[in-house]
Amino acid sequence: MIKIIVSGFNGSMGQKVVKMINDSADMQLVGGFNPVINDLDPKSYGLPDDVKIFSKLEDINLKADIWIDFSIPSAVFDNTKFAIEKGIRPVIGTSGMSEEQTTILKKMADDKNLGGIIASNFGLSAVLMMKFAQTAAKYFKESEIIEKHHEDKIDAPSGTALNTARLIYEARGNDQIQHSSDDPMNTRGGDYHGTKIHALRLPGFVADEEVIFGGIGETLTISQSTTDRQSFMTGVKLAVHEVMGKNQLIVGLEKLI
Amino acid sequence: MIKIIVSGFNGSMGQKVVKMINDSADMQLVGGFNPVINDLDPKSYGLPDDVKIFSKLEDINLKADIWIDFSIPSAVFDNTKFAIEKGIRPVIGTSGMSEEQTTILKKMADDKNLGGIIASNFGLSAVLMMKFAQTAAKYFKESEIIEKHHEDKIDAPSGTALNTARLIYEARGNDQIQHSSDDPMNTRGGDYHGTKIHALRLPGFVADEEVIFGGIGETLTISQSTTDRQSFMTGVKLAVHEVMGKNQLIVGLEKLI
Amino acid sequence: MIKIIVSGFNGSMGQKVVKMINDSADMQLVGGFNPVINDLDPKSYGLPDDVKIFSKLEDINLKADIWIDFSIPSAVFDNTKFAIEKGIRPVIGTSGMSEEQTTILKKMADDKNLGGIIASNFGLSAVLMMKFAQTAAKYFKESEIIEKHHEDKIDAPSGTALNTARLIYEARGNDQIQHSSDDPMNTRGGDYHGTKIHALRLPGFVADEEVIFGGIGETLTISQSTTDRQSFMTGVKLAVHEVMGKNQLIVGLEKLI
Amino acid sequence: MIKIIVSGFNGSMGQKVVKMINDSADMQLVGGFNPVINDLDPKSYGLPDDVKIFSKLEDINLKADIWIDFSIPSAVFDNTKFAIEKGIRPVIGTSGMSEEQTTILKKMADDKNLGGIIASNFGLSAVLMMKFAQTAAKYFKESEIIEKHHEDKIDAPSGTALNTARLIYEARGNDQIQHSSDDPMNTRGGDYHGTKIHALRLPGFVADEEVIFGGIGETLTISQSTTDRQSFMTGVKLAVHEVMGKNQLIVGLEKLI
Repeated sequence: MIKIIVSGFNGSMGQKVVKMINDSADMQLVGGFNPVINDLDPKSYGLPDDVKIFSKLEDINLKADIWIDFSIPSAVFDNTKFAIEKGIRPVIGTSGMSEEQTTILKKMADDKNLGGIIASNFGLSAVLMMKFAQTAAKYFKESEIIEKHHEDKIDAPSGTALNTARLIYEARGNDQIQHSSDDPMNTRGGDYHGTKIHALRLPGFVADEEVIFGGIGETLTISQSTTDRQSFMTGVKLAVHEVMGKNQLIVGLEKLI
Repeated sequence: MIKIIVSGFNGSMGQKVVKMINDSADMQLVGGFNPVINDLDPKSYGLPDDVKIFSKLEDINLKADIWIDFSIPSAVFDNTKFAIEKGIRPVIGTSGMSEEQTTILKKMADDKNLGGIIASNFGLSAVLMMKFAQTAAKYFKESEIIEKHHEDKIDAPSGTALNTARLIYEARGNDQIQHSSDDPMNTRGGDYHGTKIHALRLPGFVADEEVIFGGIGETLTISQSTTDRQSFMTGVKLAVHEVMGKNQLIVGLEKLI
Repeated sequence: MIKIIVSGFNGSMGQKVVKMINDSADMQLVGGFNPVINDLDPKSYGLPDDVKIFSKLEDINLKADIWIDFSIPSAVFDNTKFAIEKGIRPVIGTSGMSEEQTTILKKMADDKNLGGIIASNFGLSAVLMMKFAQTAAKYFKESEIIEKHHEDKIDAPSGTALNTARLIYEARGNDQIQHSSDDPMNTRGGDYHGTKIHALRLPGFVADEEVIFGGIGETLTISQSTTDRQSFMTGVKLAVHEVMGKNQLIVGLEKLI
Repeated sequence: MIKIIVSGFNGSMGQKVVKMINDSADMQLVGGFNPVINDLDPKSYGLPDDVKIFSKLEDINLKADIWIDFSIPSAVFDNTKFAIEKGIRPVIGTSGMSEEQTTILKKMADDKNLGGIIASNFGLSAVLMMKFAQTAAKYFKESEIIEKHHEDKIDAPSGTALNTARLIYEARGNDQIQHSSDDPMNTRGGDYHGTKIHALRLPGFVADEEVIFGGIGETLTISQSTTDRQSFMTGVKLAVHEVMGKNQLIVGLEKLI
């Protein structure tokens, strides 16, 4: 039985994590953490009596296997440090850490031979899409990326689209061919080392992404569509199982696949 | 039997037109015109003996019902004027005429109660896509356009994409809502009165176009794909039949549908 | 101000309808009906004091403009009859009425010059898709339909897919060409007068539908995707406004578009 | 310089191969073979003087590195046997060999440490699609396949669709979950160990294939589209280069990727 503490247990993603744990025969929720709550009664959150609720890191005195964190950018570094020090394997979905912070945490965990993962995207379809794009990039010299999100997403392009372009560039080791273009309206998209990125913002979409590779007389398209953020839990569950058998901190779900 | 003269009969599109006529039980090729040829023997072009070949407009002395023109921008205005004067219904696929020239020709034909058509796109799937987009625009306030063409197409966006955006704007009568955006890489596409246009250029595509309409919890997508330019002949054939029963010059195949 | 009674006001769709009414400046919820409730206090349902709650048809003594019904198949006929008798325009989304019942209700409403609508699908994207398919069917002789739904949908094909095939057949007036086929695994789909229908059932989909028309060298695809059933409310809202100006009962949202 | 003999050099695919060789700086066409020709003059086929043309296997006395075969099912086994005996690496695109024949040829080549490949599909996009599907099958328990081909393709499903289903099944090691279904029209597709296959036949398509994987709240789609059979030459070229460094006969282009 894998014993789990959830940081941010009563937030939007945290509640999905708790549900995933309850639905998994080999996982047990042992603790919930959130620094901004006063009520420490598990029943107030619909949780069984034997789950301990904490609002201070220093009070956490449980033995646990896994620390799942979907909290907030300002807290995630200290949370993860705490977990590693206690020998609890971190599974971190909270975004916002600097590259430097990630490096520190990785060294800490690796020194203790402690498994763990920090990932910006736990969506399996997105992670596989990126992985496949890396391979396809070796065989197709030209590619473009289209991402489609709901109208309230302000930043463009999405992190996944940009990451995909970066992985394509790294796989190729050189810039993509540029075709001459007469484009007064700026319709040819954003450029990342020659791979064009196009971002759409429309109601009706949650989060879709596609990479198109073009060659003589053929195209190859890898696309993923998210219709419900519950999808992330499939990746979290996979990560929990995988890091139990690892002895270092991994950055990116694609490294586990 | 509909008697037809083809201007540009031995060019790439002209040859497709000749084939379409030969494959149609109710059409007959009576003449071919091209000002840059010397050889006026129909057999040199694989045509039957009773087809007359001309290299000068003034030599054309045939009675014909239809003048199909897939020639060159610099010649199309004079060709069409000639056809109308002779009472031959023009079916014009050659691009490059100014709005002023089109207006002059329309007045000439309308005054003579002569049917005819000038169209920039004879692809039925593209024309229907534009027509449907006009209707959908009344029910969906937000839309974006993606067009994908082969890597050698230099201009962006395509005429069809821009026309579609124009028709959407006219159907709505107002600019589309703008969402705030943080887009340092310019990935949000070209803007036509709020409708964003995205152009892709990759080998493997011939000419694809899609319009996406987004509303609360749903999207509607109208897309067309061209895999062979022979597709235009379906529209030319339709136009030939339709203009036989018209008594004015029509601009745009969508007006016949 | 359009005064509305909602039948099935506290069901899954009913609650969406109530929210839509509350979000609309020109609509007012005046009553809620459900025969299986005991509690008639509007506050128990989060509704304001001036909304009357009823559990018996005969108790409903309100003046109202519109009766929206998302209840159950066994009740909808009597509900609609009641509304028409009272001079309240019906907007019916509940499925399950026979053709005979629909005919009776239509006659009743038409005799009173009362506007109304009975529709199996209030999704605008689905309704427009069907409408466009009817037009495209006149220009393309061949088409196939693909529908994709969540894994729990037992019946196949979907009502929308079958309706689309029916509308295509009616628009053409004849069966679609059959190509000879060697298909031992039965992969060519279900057949409706020559138009093939393919049904997919996979987690991750809510309700998607696409119609593909194929011609020489080109395809035209009309597709719609539902990511949230809240989408139906756009169609219900449209219907409410439209039937206020009608004097007969309309069957099918496509007739209003 | 890689010296190549092309079997079926003047057929439809053979001519594409010859063009590919001529366009490649490191390849040289040294011979052409076709048992049904009488004219052995290379100029008759638009080939340079130093290319030898043969109509009998036993006459072929050239030193060559590669034997590319796009001929006919009844001849390919003997052709390949001949090539292996002569120490010429076979690159075989001709379909129609039995599993037994393939095994014999593989043993022959392997015993001589001779590189070579027999592949039913040289389309890189199709081969990558199959490869990615194998990986995705490990993470997604449910998938369906759609293939779309021109109306003249009689057999259904396509070899690529069936192969993809087989690879998915092998990757999972067990049958896919079956959902209960009420499907009187047979719209749920053909079944291969639980993975459903849907085949469309419409004008306008050349050869398209897509695999859809569904999970909770997300889908992953890998699709490939062929617009011109010239696309196969990218895979043939890759195969030529790869088998130069191999010492056994490989079955399936995916093994080289």
